[in-house]
Amino acid sequence: MSSVNNKVVLKHALKGLPKAHDFEVKAEPLPEPVDGMFRIRHLYIALDPWQRSAMAGRHATDSKPYGTGDTPPAEIIGIVEDSHHESFANGDYVRAMGGWQEFSLSNGDGAKLIKPDLAHTDAVPISTHLGVLGMPGLTAWASIVRLADVQPGQTVLVSAAHGPVGSMVGQIAIKKGATAVGIAGSDEKCQMVTEKLGFSACVNYKASGYPESLRKALPNGADIYHDNVGGQMLIDAINVMNEYGTVVLCGLISQYNDPALAVDLPLALPIMKRLTMKGLVVYDHADAEDEFVSTVAPWINDGSIRYLEDIAVGLDSAGAQFAKLMRGDNIGKTLIKLNP
Amino acid sequence: MSSVNNKVVLKHALKGLPKAHDFEVKAEPLPEPVDGMFRIRHLYIALDPWQRSAMAGRHATDSKPYGTGDTPPAEIIGIVEDSHHESFANGDYVRAMGGWQEFSLSNGDGAKLIKPDLAHTDAVPISTHLGVLGMPGLTAWASIVRLADVQPGQTVLVSAAHGPVGSMVGQIAIKKGATAVGIAGSDEKCQMVTEKLGFSACVNYKASGYPESLRKALPNGADIYHDNVGGQMLIDAINVMNEYGTVVLCGLISQYNDPALAVDLPLALPIMKRLTMKGLVVYDHADAEDEFVSTVAPWINDGSIRYLEDIAVGLDSAGAQFAKLMRGDNIGKTLIKLNP
Repeated sequence: MSSVNNKVVLKHALKGLPKAHDFEVKAEPLPEPVDGMFRIRHLYIALDPWQRSAMAGRHATDSKPYGTGDTPPAEIIGIVEDSHHESFANGDYVRAMGGWQEFSLSNGDGAKLIKPDLAHTDAVPISTHLGVLGMPGLTAWASIVRLADVQPGQTVLVSAAHGPVGSMVGQIAIKKGATAVGIAGSDEKCQMVTEKLGFSACVNYKASGYPESLRKALPNGADIYHDNVGGQMLIDAINVMNEYGTVVLCGLISQYNDPALAVDLPLALPIMKRLTMKGLVVYDHADAEDEFVSTVAPWINDGSIRYLEDIAVGLDSAGAQFAKLMRGDNIGKTLIKLNP
Repeated sequence: MSSVNNKVVLKHALKGLPKAHDFEVKAEPLPEPVDGMFRIRHLYIALDPWQRSAMAGRHATDSKPYGTGDTPPAEIIGIVEDSHHESFANGDYVRAMGGWQEFSLSNGDGAKLIKPDLAHTDAVPISTHLGVLGMPGLTAWASIVRLADVQPGQTVLVSAAHGPVGSMVGQIAIKKGATAVGIAGSDEKCQMVTEKLGFSACVNYKASGYPESLRKALPNGADIYHDNVGGQMLIDAINVMNEYGTVVLCGLISQYNDPALAVDLPLALPIMKRLTMKGLVVYDHADAEDEFVSTVAPWINDGSIRYLEDIAVGLDSAGAQFAKLMRGDNIGKTLIKLNP
């Protein structure tokens, strides 16, 4: 058994787009749980755009920028060991906020047991509890089922359609009888979105002819827009929306690296279109988790919902993998798999 | 009987804040209705901020800027004469889009008969059908009853609280068991809002200490914000809103004179606050008009809802009166009364 905990730390506060060499790996003594606590041995670490704004001190969880020596936050999947907690036994699979490191301590707050029957099937590997069955999947569920209340026959437009949230928004919408159209940043991503995920169309926003190409992909307009991006992409999307449509505001990837790049929303647009716009924070929807998992896990098991993962192995790859994510070069849920 | 129609025309396309000398009065022959039409002799002309954006070609009704010789649009109240229309008889009171002039022709489209019992009481003078019982009142009803679905015990924040829409939003909210807090541009306006209209508080946004004063006026935050203004005032208002609140986007007075002055909305705000934001266009809510009038007219009759009017007499005063409105110096519904 290891006697150290390797963790990723910032070499300095981030500026703009993160780069691999902004991070380094350091060893510290293995943390020892006291009474009422347990240690988690991390199996997978989720990399997400919100971590960039957290490191900038602009996230719900963090109001102060991260600096030299700080370990980035992350959801992780791991195995309980050395438990001194009555509700978590050694060997249990849990999902928790554990950060970019090999081990973390927990007092159980915010840690969620993963039911064995869902944790160990071939079709539903444990890593999906960070993606399609985890926070991104629940975000998608909250967006399209709760906030947008999608109805059969509607057309749903989704930005970052190849990503873990967007891919699920579209697929759940299709399951509910709607049509999904995606926006993504390359022809390769768009091909995956239509061929693997069942979207009716996907538009490459980096190709010439955008946003006219978006209008062509939506002959009947869009009734719902799930926005992960903000900025100009939101404006272009609103321009192709139908009157009385719903916009779910779920992320601002366009400005996480640099708030100076923010393009704010001209308010005449939602007024002229009579839109309803709703801000979504997934932490509000924990009460939907059981319904979500019990509905979606069978769809993954029977192959009718697909998911994409972009996995790098080992803590040393975390910085480069995060930089790739924040450049938008990832395809699917971005993970670090730790060596067992 | 007059043989001419006097009308206000633009001397040139407007730039920025309108001024009295941007307009002049010209005479033309009295228009003669053909079969299926009637003439309206105007009694009151409503001046509204939307007319500024219409003249700039930026309103739902107008996509081309108004130029030299064009007559500004307006809702009017008038009396039917020389009718060749089966549904409108000579002597009927009507509300219609008639423009800044003494007479207009109508084929009945968009013209609404005003029921005699509501047109002629002392408490409900005919002019109220352009204000508290007209489009501004219906706008307020659609905002606070339909879109925001106000509930007893909620706190409703209202910008331009002295204006015809804002004053009604607050008063209807109070009738529904909510608390109303206003924002207005002078201590005099604020005094009217609290003393005459029953708002619990009103904050002068031009006074020093704003927007901190807004926070102090809202010890429990705001659950609903009715926005007539957009821009920085919307941002300041969102900052004092409670999570899961509702914003009704109803107007953009801050940028009607000059779109270059627009301050767009940073999208992190509605996400962090989990807001629902709804764009309101009153034309969508014609089906609520009967319910609205039959509910509100008795409240005006019994004095439990108050209204403010800012009336100037004669077409010659229209330009100066409109300039005053667009400077924000009006108090209450801004009207031109025509000499009989």
